[in-house]
Amino acid sequence: MTKTVCIQGLGFVGFAMAVAVANAVDKVTKKPLYKVIGIDLNNAEGIKKINDINSGNFPIKCNDEELKKAYKKCLEQKNFIASTNNDEFKKADYVIVDINLDVDIKGKYSKIEFAKFKNALETVASKIKIDTLVIIETTVPPGTTEKIVYPIFKNKYKERFNTKAIPKLAHSYERVMPGPNYLNSITNFWRVFSGINKESALCCEKFLSSIINTKEFPMSELPSCTASELSKVLENSYRATNIAFIYEWGIFAEKIGVNLFQVLEAIQKRPTHNNIKKPGLGVGGYCLTKDPLMGYVSSNQIYKNFDAEFPITNKAVNINSKMPEYTFNLVERLIKELNLNRNILILGLSYRDQVGDIRNSASIELAKMFLKKNYFLNTHDPMVNDELPIEFNLCESLPSPFSFGTIIFTVSHTFYKEMDVLKWLLNFKGLLIDSNNVLDNQDILALKQNLINLKVIGRGDL
Amino acid sequence: MTKTVCIQGLGFVGFAMAVAVANAVDKVTKKPLYKVIGIDLNNAEGIKKINDINSGNFPIKCNDEELKKAYKKCLEQKNFIASTNNDEFKKADYVIVDINLDVDIKGKYSKIEFAKFKNALETVASKIKIDTLVIIETTVPPGTTEKIVYPIFKNKYKERFNTKAIPKLAHSYERVMPGPNYLNSITNFWRVFSGINKESALCCEKFLSSIINTKEFPMSELPSCTASELSKVLENSYRATNIAFIYEWGIFAEKIGVNLFQVLEAIQKRPTHNNIKKPGLGVGGYCLTKDPLMGYVSSNQIYKNFDAEFPITNKAVNINSKMPEYTFNLVERLIKELNLNRNILILGLSYRDQVGDIRNSASIELAKMFLKKNYFLNTHDPMVNDELPIEFNLCESLPSPFSFGTIIFTVSHTFYKEMDVLKWLLNFKGLLIDSNNVLDNQDILALKQNLINLKVIGRGDL
Repeated sequence: MTKTVCIQGLGFVGFAMAVAVANAVDKVTKKPLYKVIGIDLNNAEGIKKINDINSGNFPIKCNDEELKKAYKKCLEQKNFIASTNNDEFKKADYVIVDINLDVDIKGKYSKIEFAKFKNALETVASKIKIDTLVIIETTVPPGTTEKIVYPIFKNKYKERFNTKAIPKLAHSYERVMPGPNYLNSITNFWRVFSGINKESALCCEKFLSSIINTKEFPMSELPSCTASELSKVLENSYRATNIAFIYEWGIFAEKIGVNLFQVLEAIQKRPTHNNIKKPGLGVGGYCLTKDPLMGYVSSNQIYKNFDAEFPITNKAVNINSKMPEYTFNLVERLIKELNLNRNILILGLSYRDQVGDIRNSASIELAKMFLKKNYFLNTHDPMVNDELPIEFNLCESLPSPFSFGTIIFTVSHTFYKEMDVLKWLLNFKGLLIDSNNVLDNQDILALKQNLINLKVIGRGDL
Repeated sequence: MTKTVCIQGLGFVGFAMAVAVANAVDKVTKKPLYKVIGIDLNNAEGIKKINDINSGNFPIKCNDEELKKAYKKCLEQKNFIASTNNDEFKKADYVIVDINLDVDIKGKYSKIEFAKFKNALETVASKIKIDTLVIIETTVPPGTTEKIVYPIFKNKYKERFNTKAIPKLAHSYERVMPGPNYLNSITNFWRVFSGINKESALCCEKFLSSIINTKEFPMSELPSCTASELSKVLENSYRATNIAFIYEWGIFAEKIGVNLFQVLEAIQKRPTHNNIKKPGLGVGGYCLTKDPLMGYVSSNQIYKNFDAEFPITNKAVNINSKMPEYTFNLVERLIKELNLNRNILILGLSYRDQVGDIRNSASIELAKMFLKKNYFLNTHDPMVNDELPIEFNLCESLPSPFSFGTIIFTVSHTFYKEMDVLKWLLNFKGLLIDSNNVLDNQDILALKQNLINLKVIGRGDL
């Protein structure tokens, strides 16, 4: 019997997860295992997404050809549809919750408004069958599944089934990596999971094993949903902290005339130090900017009886959010020193290389700083199709460099890495900034010889 | 021709380095390549070390059998002697500087007193031949070799040789790991080096290649001695910061009922996160407590024209130094709650497992806190032979547990890991603390069943 899987929330994770589930096949017969129903909100954005999905328009910005192929395949085999109708949950054998949970970022006083998240789960709880497994995949403050989600289901079940039935509930988080290996990062990667009880955990394990290549990427079961939630928040906090850490050493290296990238290469030879980060423009995206604050939110809003101190983690988030200011201040100082015009070209707007996602992008922050101070701005990004405010002057193709006093490389898109920078900048006499390790060493040295005013974040040797 | 190598400073690093150099052999003839002269200060401590070395008494506390064997071998082949006579430097083809450079730790206002270090190098500069290569192996603030050491040699050379001769000077740092693989961590590990000029770098590379297994562990050359110095300081700062980071998540995990060790195991499956640290008692030893401060010292005392901000790194050092307080406060609170007697037994005094070194040991700090508050203390450590103040009551062998209200495991020595904890603690009714991941999970669960009051740092699941 083909089982039905409902995915709640068709954003970056939900849509990709839906495609991954719809592409899972029986090992013997090679036939699809699941019928997938993606469910999103009955509003303009939700309806657009759903219409796109059902009519064969790839609904997210993405350059993963595998994901596009897999999406086509599930349309052909007709086991993936999208809907705004919550009654679809009635058919579900499994529900995967992929709705957003945003943090109102205010440093130590960050808060989460749980109302929408709770409502969405109440909808699920009021529709599903008594033995449907619900998997929370959203990144949430530790304790959310046990202390917020579980009571919602428990109460609703009591009401609906008039029994002491225990809902089947699990938490398992994704580690998707936006970019050209998006789908692969779901199906070929290590997973962490836990269940509200042994039955839920077993059921979750069995389900995920049918989608994920667990032979090569064995899953880790944790003893509680809270542990699984903590695991996700902690791993992103670890990364955010290491980015903030290297930021201060990058500034120091610049001051004392050292190329920090060479130093990092030497350090990374040590297996215990091979994950040290590189300096750059700043931290963006949806996850690293908010997840580290979920520890505090958990203590303050879920457990309530203590406010956890996260001196290092909170400091790191704060530093990361201020990093683009460093590049802005550097440029502003040099424009004055070199007496350059106020025309700025920013190359790259997305939050990381090879994606079009501009959520919390550090280069968008940088652009805004220039606009605020009345610089004349042009921007370019081969991956971004968003409508941006008119004053961003987003260029369709790479403009000629000569009208700009300052050009700033901000994102390591392959487009910039592969372009002939030397040719493009021949006779350019303004200021060139590489704020995010975009240019290769050979180009940098050649540019330097052509007497261009050149600054590279993290390099004091120029 | 056998070359002569003088090692200045016969401490933990200098002595092991001397043995490594004396054991280097010609690849073809298998004969020793170098005659090694270890030189230390003409004071009581120095003279004792030198007499020990020359009379066959292994001079440091160490449980590396390979190092002991290698030391014996170079005594037999008579190519390692020790001396307080600085005139020995006259014979040197190579000098390796392994003297200490301590930091007066005062957070952001930390300082280094360079006088002794400078004097030692002036001695070398006034004795060596014009083409002797001097390798600085001491961990120093970035800029020290170029801005402090080089001028000393340049001036002395001008005086002595009446020429513009450029001294041959290099920086290359060790990454020795005290413990049972001490010698191996010198000869079979990746090295970083740089020279004050190309000639010095080449000469340093050739020399180190004759001692280190560079075929399996290729060396990294950096473009300046400052870069090499920065590399060392940065890698220890990275580690210290990641220890401080996990400390706050350990406390949080305890509060919300999660076993952080299980979470960390799940996270470490990700190759990008496999170096995340584990919670423990605190950071000790000679390096991680001071090296992270050398960035600030460099900006303030060497470059002088700026005070580098290291918000994350400085905070981390500060947090690490206060970590034992957490265990102390926990114990003090529980003693009151459980109405226990004030007899404390601390198991482990060295700064890490399988070494006898107590420099900046976190468990010594912990012990001192109990003494300050007039607890009655007993301590035990199978690796430590130091004379400790009488009030530490260092026990020769493991005492019976029954007179103690509280027993604290603080260091993961093999002795504690392998002892039969269950048998030893049978019928013990006091408080048992594992502050440093000493006990294994099975023992912990069994102890818990016997109704012992048990707390494990980083585990909230008990």
